[in-house]
Amino acid sequence: MPNAARWAATITLTATAVCGPLAGAALATPSPTALYAPSALVFTTGHGEFAAEATPERAVTLNCAPTPSGTHPAAVSACAELRAVNGDFEALSARSDVLCTREYDPVVVTVEGVWQGKRISYERTFANECVKESYGTTVFTY
Amino acid sequence: MPNAARWAATITLTATAVCGPLAGAALATPSPTALYAPSALVFTTGHGEFAAEATPERAVTLNCAPTPSGTHPAAVSACAELRAVNGDFEALSARSDVLCTREYDPVVVTVEGVWQGKRISYERTFANECVKESYGTTVFTY
Repeated sequence: MPNAARWAATITLTATAVCGPLAGAALATPSPTALYAPSALVFTTGHGEFAAEATPERAVTLNCAPTPSGTHPAAVSACAELRAVNGDFEALSARSDVLCTREYDPVVVTVEGVWQGKRISYERTFANECVKESYGTTVFTY
Repeated sequence: MPNAARWAATITLTATAVCGPLAGAALATPSPTALYAPSALVFTTGHGEFAAEATPERAVTLNCAPTPSGTHPAAVSACAELRAVNGDFEALSARSDVLCTREYDPVVVTVEGVWQGKRISYERTFANECVKESYGTTVFTY
């Protein structure tokens, strides 16, 4: 084999070895028959006092089993927070390091889906966006 | 530069050029301030006649805006199907090419979340798993 051809073959093999595992991870689809209790949620937020009257302006998904994923911008830490309270949204607490104005511009949050095999249907209204984001650490930051 | 060093540099550049876009796609997180109406859903399925009594055995997420994603095993085609019926789950029809037994082992499906900015809350019971999967093409195959 001429020297250049040998190097070309090496480049191809290197690219395959380096990219192979990455491509595999990116393309892998989860097994439809899961051996774990599912945790899959959809979060919405909209302006208003009640979900029934508020148009959902944003909606994100969060999967926590077997690994964190979804369109939630902080899936890993949101899953960790929910695990810490065992999926009980009422048990999340407001952070004391955040200062919010008292402006009343209510935002309503909903969470639907399943946490460790148990159905979740949660709705909560916050006085304004700042108060919403101060509740928990990253769960309602989307 | 010696010949071997030059080739080594070429290998690194090639690997970067080939892997770069792939790594970018795998790591990209969607913008939290979306400029499109959200479409984010969570699907569950469990054995029983009513969702309130059935333990959700599987739960998957499906995002259709701006691009299909989620733990739904056929996100791209499920989104295409839902777009075709404008998110109206009642408008999905059973495929005529599937033969199912008449065995009664009911499975209940729920869909919660948002389709193009409109809240979705859907529940449907099928006589058995085969009948469920024959409804639509891939939407309920998870």
